[in-house]
Amino acid sequence: MKTLTVELGARSYPIHIGPGLLADDKLLKSLVGADQVLIVTNETVAPLYLKHVESAYAERKQRSLVLPDGEQYKTVDSFVQVIDELIDAGFHRDSCIVALGGGVIGDLAGFAAAAFQRGIDFLQLPTTLLAQVDSSVGGKTAVNHPRAKNMIGAFHQPVAVIADTETLRTLPRRELSAGLAEVIKHGLIVDARFFAWLESNMDALLAFDGPALTHAITRCCEIKAGIVAEDEREQGRRALLNFGHTFGHAIEALGGYGRWLHGEAIAIGMCMAADTSVRLGWLDSRDAARIRELLERAGLPTTAAGLQVADVLDRMRLDKKAGRKGLRVVLLRGLGKAEVAPAPDDAILREAIAGSLAAARPVAR
Amino acid sequence: MKTLTVELGARSYPIHIGPGLLADDKLLKSLVGADQVLIVTNETVAPLYLKHVESAYAERKQRSLVLPDGEQYKTVDSFVQVIDELIDAGFHRDSCIVALGGGVIGDLAGFAAAAFQRGIDFLQLPTTLLAQVDSSVGGKTAVNHPRAKNMIGAFHQPVAVIADTETLRTLPRRELSAGLAEVIKHGLIVDARFFAWLESNMDALLAFDGPALTHAITRCCEIKAGIVAEDEREQGRRALLNFGHTFGHAIEALGGYGRWLHGEAIAIGMCMAADTSVRLGWLDSRDAARIRELLERAGLPTTAAGLQVADVLDRMRLDKKAGRKGLRVVLLRGLGKAEVAPAPDDAILREAIAGSLAAARPVAR
Repeated sequence: MKTLTVELGARSYPIHIGPGLLADDKLLKSLVGADQVLIVTNETVAPLYLKHVESAYAERKQRSLVLPDGEQYKTVDSFVQVIDELIDAGFHRDSCIVALGGGVIGDLAGFAAAAFQRGIDFLQLPTTLLAQVDSSVGGKTAVNHPRAKNMIGAFHQPVAVIADTETLRTLPRRELSAGLAEVIKHGLIVDARFFAWLESNMDALLAFDGPALTHAITRCCEIKAGIVAEDEREQGRRALLNFGHTFGHAIEALGGYGRWLHGEAIAIGMCMAADTSVRLGWLDSRDAARIRELLERAGLPTTAAGLQVADVLDRMRLDKKAGRKGLRVVLLRGLGKAEVAPAPDDAILREAIAGSLAAARPVAR
Repeated sequence: MKTLTVELGARSYPIHIGPGLLADDKLLKSLVGADQVLIVTNETVAPLYLKHVESAYAERKQRSLVLPDGEQYKTVDSFVQVIDELIDAGFHRDSCIVALGGGVIGDLAGFAAAAFQRGIDFLQLPTTLLAQVDSSVGGKTAVNHPRAKNMIGAFHQPVAVIADTETLRTLPRRELSAGLAEVIKHGLIVDARFFAWLESNMDALLAFDGPALTHAITRCCEIKAGIVAEDEREQGRRALLNFGHTFGHAIEALGGYGRWLHGEAIAIGMCMAADTSVRLGWLDSRDAARIRELLERAGLPTTAAGLQVADVLDRMRLDKKAGRKGLRVVLLRGLGKAEVAPAPDDAILREAIAGSLAAARPVAR
């Protein structure tokens, strides 16, 4: 088991990474002080791991809520369902929500924990690669608005994160790939060596090689924990983690939150961001080609057929990262060198978007 | 104009108190940096003051949302309505919500500001005495759950509070009295001299005497600002502000949020808390009688006919202040000397509750 700490003063918390951790009753118990525990999970994850987790808290006052699986349930209605459950159970301010599942469950249960009685504890038990390397760490919680993703939420740090790498073995291949998009992102924004390591180890990761997965998850969590510790509320550097996300969120929303998995939309978004960087003369086109190639090897889409450039651009302007300074995007000055920048001329953005809407073609040189 | 500061480091903010402040365009403008402004108000307040406030932000991108008036609209649905309006308007992360109204509007609009894009600015323009002396200060925001008050919310500090004492002249007498319940509470918990001042000046306050109102509001804000600065998230001393509230919330909920105004329920709750303190031998029964008398002079109910003792007690146990240590209540060791304590024996609580459910009668000696 590897253990890192997200350093946030009084709100610091550990991330434990390793195989079989969900079966470790003692660890699960030790991380939750509350005597009232609500486990929130979904229909896919429940048959696999709910019993494990319930058994850890059998001596507490414990309830479980099993929601349908899917991004389309990351709504205010599901949020209210979690709150109703807490009230039905008569749970008080010292209770804890345990989020067992992927990013949707973590974000939703985390927001319920942030808002119930103005904030109760929550524990993240991420069971997808995407959640283990990204969404479970850093305290961003939210639900979607029908017209925009993650519009309603809070910064609310968990008491701990436990990433059981064994859970990835039951992950559908498509979900593994979606998680790899965020893994690749971590290399791209700040760590060129890690990006190169991923190029060398992609096959091992796709084969669920344990040590390779543990290394990749640990490195991503280290990178993210370091950035979050510096800038918890995304006033500055944390925005780097949104590389590919302004483009990607637009693609995801236009697809109706169901056509593409989050990681897939982000993969396409990263291609658009890399292409923009090339067109500005910031990034070598050979590096952009390496990015596209690694994403494709990870089983990810790098183009989104059927969308209109204008729709993507309009949607990007609605993104919550758009502030009074206008639309900003994260671009690359090189592999491992991301930078937040004002969006360039529409003409450049349009070309970069168009390049990943059509069928795959080489980046313009 | 009197100005205080709530000292919270980087999140410190001013409270301005005085007559005619809502007409002071320059002041209103200077306190909002955002270029996108959503004013949230209700049908009662809008005809009186909305024009004033709109004119202050006429040069910004500005929208107004007028909600129905009443505690029964402090719901998740109304919260979603505010979020919808922000999305319809295309407002971004640098926008500001201006809450123009009483406690319901402040709490609701404040929670929307806390959750929209994980937190945007908001400005409190309280127009009721209750909101000016209590709910607008300190950053507690929330909406009600059908089965319990303020169950869903956040700590989110405003950028400023402007209490225009002129607005109190248009306040129905019943609402003025409800606000006086919270004013009296501030004296009771930490300032016996202020309590005595209120005994001497109650007639002036009820006659809307400007200097008297300004003094009372300023003193309450000073007391509350001091407590909040010490204990923003209610880990300790801030709980004193809940004097009368554990009893009062139960009464309010059993009445269906409509029979009693919040301040009225709190007045009855403070009588129950004082009575409990007397029965424990903590408070002189003559002081309890002074409390009851001052509340009655302020036009407040001190008994709630028609409720059952057992229902009140059950409901209290659902209160969000109930934690793993069991139900806790704020009691008095004397006038101006409140203390948080574990709830005493049920027998004592039952008697204290019963004493304020029946028709008014002297406190047991």
